[in-house]
Amino acid sequence: MKTGEKNRQVAFLGPKGTFTQQAAIKFFTGRRMKFIDAKTIQEVFEAVAEGRATYGVVPVENSVEGSVNLTLDSLYKSNLKICGEILEEIRHSLIANRMTPKSKIKVILSHPQALSQCRAYLDKNFPKAKREEADSTASAVRKLKKMRNAAAIGTELAAKIYGMKILDRNLCDWPRNLTRFLILSKNDAKPTGKDKTSVIFSTKDIPGALHRALEPFASRNINLTKIESRPSKEKPWEYVFFMEFEGHRDDERCADALRDLRNLCEFLKVLGSYRRAS
Amino acid sequence: MKTGEKNRQVAFLGPKGTFTQQAAIKFFTGRRMKFIDAKTIQEVFEAVAEGRATYGVVPVENSVEGSVNLTLDSLYKSNLKICGEILEEIRHSLIANRMTPKSKIKVILSHPQALSQCRAYLDKNFPKAKREEADSTASAVRKLKKMRNAAAIGTELAAKIYGMKILDRNLCDWPRNLTRFLILSKNDAKPTGKDKTSVIFSTKDIPGALHRALEPFASRNINLTKIESRPSKEKPWEYVFFMEFEGHRDDERCADALRDLRNLCEFLKVLGSYRRAS
Repeated sequence: MKTGEKNRQVAFLGPKGTFTQQAAIKFFTGRRMKFIDAKTIQEVFEAVAEGRATYGVVPVENSVEGSVNLTLDSLYKSNLKICGEILEEIRHSLIANRMTPKSKIKVILSHPQALSQCRAYLDKNFPKAKREEADSTASAVRKLKKMRNAAAIGTELAAKIYGMKILDRNLCDWPRNLTRFLILSKNDAKPTGKDKTSVIFSTKDIPGALHRALEPFASRNINLTKIESRPSKEKPWEYVFFMEFEGHRDDERCADALRDLRNLCEFLKVLGSYRRAS
Repeated sequence: MKTGEKNRQVAFLGPKGTFTQQAAIKFFTGRRMKFIDAKTIQEVFEAVAEGRATYGVVPVENSVEGSVNLTLDSLYKSNLKICGEILEEIRHSLIANRMTPKSKIKVILSHPQALSQCRAYLDKNFPKAKREEADSTASAVRKLKKMRNAAAIGTELAAKIYGMKILDRNLCDWPRNLTRFLILSKNDAKPTGKDKTSVIFSTKDIPGALHRALEPFASRNINLTKIESRPSKEKPWEYVFFMEFEGHRDDERCADALRDLRNLCEFLKVLGSYRRAS
């Protein structure tokens, strides 16, 4: 599989230094890849769909904040497949310009989610500092170049990329803060014996419809690992379900369940089967 | 029910002039209420829990963007009940200072969701204007007081409150953009014959658990109007389900289904029964 893969492109949700880039580098460890930053989740999907990148990496879910709606909505619209996933522990660092000591910090910048995840740390250590929202943790770190008396919450990778120093590590208020990232491509992956499958479907709006849609999985003892609803955007209060279960779409049990589900649904799209992250 | 209700307090997600305030005013039409703005969804919950307000009004779901996670997470943690709901059509207006003509607009401010919902309108009419994010549509309108050559996307109510003029109406790219708001209080509502019930539950992490949890509703022909998962925040990839169905918790059919559900769940909280919005 690795032949001919030299210098393949991987588009990730940027800017450079995001948790997504950290996850992408880890997923492709040992393979020669060129990592290119995309401005938005939509741009990652476009880069892969248009062939400018072989793979795309986007966040799909955080263990505290929940799903990344833009990723779920893009999966619904796009024809790309999921060919892998990776879990990354979110370790927030307090980062500053080399000339800024802790005692001088008056402003702390980061993505709103990172600020909220480090609230207890900030309340205790920087009760008077102003908190300012940035588009991403990486852009917060990048902004420090032009700011005095400011710090950012971001990745160790961003501190390295933008030449900043790390003042504190592991700021997060929750003991376990994991983000799950998806690897996108034009095809999904072959069975490995330890797989997961993602689908999107919609049911008819009648009593018991969702119960019936889950029956093919319950009766075959297939474990659902996630189910989430999103607005269809076509008609108010009509939903599509984003569902994941253990097994590969080519496993007989799963293939049978998917066939039954297809017969019960208004709409079904298999987003792909891929090796489960451990 | 209206006796003794004079000048009761209603806390809403502010600042003054939000869609939430518009919805709150509409819900309590004909009743003498004092409306007080809260800075965050959390503050609305606190105002009602601590008795500073009899009712609270918060957004829970938009027909395009999906659920408001902060509201779902607050319902999970709080002991308040849902005693009503109201649907409000989101009609975005382009609002400016009285001295600013359309041709001079260089910056357009609003909440990120409003900017994204009016993208086609902005691309067509203001392709060169810079788009700037604000905490809410109302705070965007308020900011216009101090800005030249700027416009905001917000409510007609905000234009009135802050003394601004409306340049354009109905900017939204989607033909139907509805937001659903919940009315919170210490008690839920009596049966009206046209009710809905909201619950939060978690299942054991075993194959078929969700399917079994839906069975008591499917077998009694009770229509689910919403089901959504949220991280439990206690352990990564453990979820709680936020579910709504037609009927009142005191209706025999629903009471039986809830009793069966309670026996199948690790955790079940009935958030309340209330009259369905039409």
